[in-house]
Amino acid sequence: MKLLVIGAAGMIGARLAARIAADGTLGGRPVESMVLADVVEPARPEGAVPAIETHAVDLSAPGSAAMLIAGRPDTIFHLAAIVSGEAEADFEKGYRINLDGTRDLFEAIRLAGREAPYAPRVVFASSIAVYGAPFPEAIPDDFALTPLTSYGTQKAIGELLLADYSRRGIFDGIGLRLPTICVRPGRPNKAASGFFSNILREPMNGQEAVLPVSEEVRHFFASPRAAIGFFLHAATMDTGPVGPRRNLAMPGLSATVGEEIEALRRIVGEKAVKLIRREPDETIARIVSGWAPDVSADRARVLGFKAETTFDEIVRAHLEDELGGVAKV
Amino acid sequence: MKLLVIGAAGMIGARLAARIAADGTLGGRPVESMVLADVVEPARPEGAVPAIETHAVDLSAPGSAAMLIAGRPDTIFHLAAIVSGEAEADFEKGYRINLDGTRDLFEAIRLAGREAPYAPRVVFASSIAVYGAPFPEAIPDDFALTPLTSYGTQKAIGELLLADYSRRGIFDGIGLRLPTICVRPGRPNKAASGFFSNILREPMNGQEAVLPVSEEVRHFFASPRAAIGFFLHAATMDTGPVGPRRNLAMPGLSATVGEEIEALRRIVGEKAVKLIRREPDETIARIVSGWAPDVSADRARVLGFKAETTFDEIVRAHLEDELGGVAKV
Repeated sequence: MKLLVIGAAGMIGARLAARIAADGTLGGRPVESMVLADVVEPARPEGAVPAIETHAVDLSAPGSAAMLIAGRPDTIFHLAAIVSGEAEADFEKGYRINLDGTRDLFEAIRLAGREAPYAPRVVFASSIAVYGAPFPEAIPDDFALTPLTSYGTQKAIGELLLADYSRRGIFDGIGLRLPTICVRPGRPNKAASGFFSNILREPMNGQEAVLPVSEEVRHFFASPRAAIGFFLHAATMDTGPVGPRRNLAMPGLSATVGEEIEALRRIVGEKAVKLIRREPDETIARIVSGWAPDVSADRARVLGFKAETTFDEIVRAHLEDELGGVAKV
Repeated sequence: MKLLVIGAAGMIGARLAARIAADGTLGGRPVESMVLADVVEPARPEGAVPAIETHAVDLSAPGSAAMLIAGRPDTIFHLAAIVSGEAEADFEKGYRINLDGTRDLFEAIRLAGREAPYAPRVVFASSIAVYGAPFPEAIPDDFALTPLTSYGTQKAIGELLLADYSRRGIFDGIGLRLPTICVRPGRPNKAASGFFSNILREPMNGQEAVLPVSEEVRHFFASPRAAIGFFLHAATMDTGPVGPRRNLAMPGLSATVGEEIEALRRIVGEKAVKLIRREPDETIARIVSGWAPDVSADRARVLGFKAETTFDEIVRAHLEDELGGVAKV
């Protein structure tokens, strides 16, 4: 089978492409070729896939989407996006990439299908940013999307388009409403959500990390490993039982910052916990208070999506996948 | 104040423009000018507004939106849309007018605001078509939008854009999720929902009407008179208490076809009821079974929106507003 990964230089996209390249198969079928695209040229993963192309391309530029699907991939992973903070700071860029880019891709598939029958599986990365406070204790699957950022708005629009194009048989789409990814690998960044990962990742590397909110703050998490699992399952599952509601809140772990820290203490030790420095930040506390504390994700669980059920698992996944199993503290 | 009505040749748009022209005021403030636009030239209403312009214009054509807001209207009513059946039959036209046209309007306002401060009130006509079955008994305000038509998808996207542009202060928007309008004036049409109005309007005119579903079918209604009231209230209300959830399910009357017929019997008489011919249609019955039977509309009621509470009122509103108070049967 032929695959296309858009956003393949991103944190999840690169790991997804690496995993498929290593496996050489998807859902038990051999992968003959992969096209990896992003605004910067993605890395070429090692593995068992005979043909891998990498493209540096702006999805929203005229002709980009048509070029990317010219090979008629059987499965398309669409993870390309301007992230939350940048989409809020740059209104036009956010709408251009996150809305127009997504629509261009969907339209390119529709137009290709008019030339010859074509209806690929499309797996779309959405986000819990589609929700906006106030929330019930756990957000049910039929809860309204009232995003409080332009990024969340653009993802919610992508979800609506995905459902309509799927309903019309233009493609066979599944939207994945991802929890906050934790532990997010890489360097600390200025995203308001950064501290959830920083306070685990940095101490595991022997570095200090700042905690700007109280230990009572509750949010909803899944590991990068779980997220890769969501994409692989969405690409290979039977979509018959999904029905017209094509966008699924992914399962995850609802946990407090205190529970994160306890897991770090259990798995890595007190020395790591001592590297967390409390530095309350009212602005971050206010932003985070508008985020979802818990998501029921009942439909996704029934449909076979799986995530961690304890923070110990999340900490261990980071140790194993990013640090070769050993903390540097 | 200066007003713009887009979709002013439509059933609601024309009556809204006529009502404001007759009043000469909106929310107690004198209306100096009205621009009335639609894809066909709207009628010029009589009344007390000194300056009325009418334009035949395709909202999605380049430059149209900027031209329409060149006079910097204080209040914009946006009712222009390709209706449900046509948006389903013509995918490209539906998206072009209902999505791109709406976005062009919102963008024109944003760009005008970069030249000089500008943040008009924008009242957007949405629809209960944004909902998709299965439903709870009465749809709550925080229920997910999972439309089952392209029209519903386009309206749901318009709602998301309206909320984001309002959150950013680009304009002060209110989206009105309209119930099915009944009694819809004019000739019978082929819309699947047509019979809800046909079985009242045609008998009141001494004409036969076809009922394709059982009397147990339940749906959610408001009169054209109530709908005009929604738009006037949305244009003049204090939007402070609305918060970031700018799209409001409008109140209405949940009633069965049997209750419609009983109201016709009480207000007009048995002679009118005898003109309803039962002719079951499986296709229409199936389509209608996917529609909302009831909507709670709690927020809108608290915010001062009002609709009929009995079908007798709906029948009387049609008699008074369209037939000079006297049925022709």
